[in-house]
Amino acid sequence: MTNNTLVKMILDRWNATVKNCDDLFASLSDEQLEKQIVPGRNRGVYLLGHLIAVHDSMLPLMELGDNRYPELQAPFHDEPDSLSAEFPPTRELRQMWKDQTADLKQRFETIQPENWFQKHTSVSAEDFAKEPHRNKLNIVLTRTTHLAYHAGQLVLLVEKIPGA
Amino acid sequence: MTNNTLVKMILDRWNATVKNCDDLFASLSDEQLEKQIVPGRNRGVYLLGHLIAVHDSMLPLMELGDNRYPELQAPFHDEPDSLSAEFPPTRELRQMWKDQTADLKQRFETIQPENWFQKHTSVSAEDFAKEPHRNKLNIVLTRTTHLAYHAGQLVLLVEKIPGA
Repeated sequence: MTNNTLVKMILDRWNATVKNCDDLFASLSDEQLEKQIVPGRNRGVYLLGHLIAVHDSMLPLMELGDNRYPELQAPFHDEPDSLSAEFPPTRELRQMWKDQTADLKQRFETIQPENWFQKHTSVSAEDFAKEPHRNKLNIVLTRTTHLAYHAGQLVLLVEKIPGA
Repeated sequence: MTNNTLVKMILDRWNATVKNCDDLFASLSDEQLEKQIVPGRNRGVYLLGHLIAVHDSMLPLMELGDNRYPELQAPFHDEPDSLSAEFPPTRELRQMWKDQTADLKQRFETIQPENWFQKHTSVSAEDFAKEPHRNKLNIVLTRTTHLAYHAGQLVLLVEKIPGA
């Protein structure tokens, strides 16, 4: 088994899950994104901002640079959704999502296989020596299941064709 | 990077996502599982049966044996949810879920690292030679994102504490 294969397995999952969310956001209007998934829970637009904020934090964790959208951490990560929260315009969030997924795709493609298995920045060298699974590729893996979890919620905002 | 580390990365994700669902099913009453996640969509009990059916199909795919619950394929995999569908009693489905996750955990622990990277049964030897990522471990990875997707829906049935 080569490292290339392992990296491909996990990046394929990441890319497929991002594509699923791309399609969902494209099919949802701004008005649909304003709705709560179920009464009292997160709105679609909160989840859009939340996913950008969580993926933005992958940059420093993976030593790929500083956060590009630090202003999204407070409203979309530190705070829960609230109907009184003031968010950036939805069209701006949509553009950030597109820019970010394209940027991450490009960055991920240039990472050499052996570099994927280096430690990420929130684990110490001592701990990493004992726990080599706490590597950069594992960051992508954990964010992929996080993304799938919220994709399962966003799909509920899509209008269902009766009988389909 | 050793194969052990990669296997651990993916099994850790599987086990954590199963644990999340275990906790969700334990916190949901039979009455709550009878509810649709949102009007017109799957009920909790359908998702419970669906997850058992999908995970049951991992056995033949990974050469671990025949399906244990073939009777669940038609109602929970081949067919969408329907309010007129007749399902096994929820307490039986809960027990199947418990038995299955314990059984899979035990089976997965006995698979040797190198065997995880052998081909699964729905890929030909010719294709596998060109696409070595289509291995048994990849089955667990794809089922993990599938499970996370539905976990994101099941959590919506849990009663939310106001203000929490």
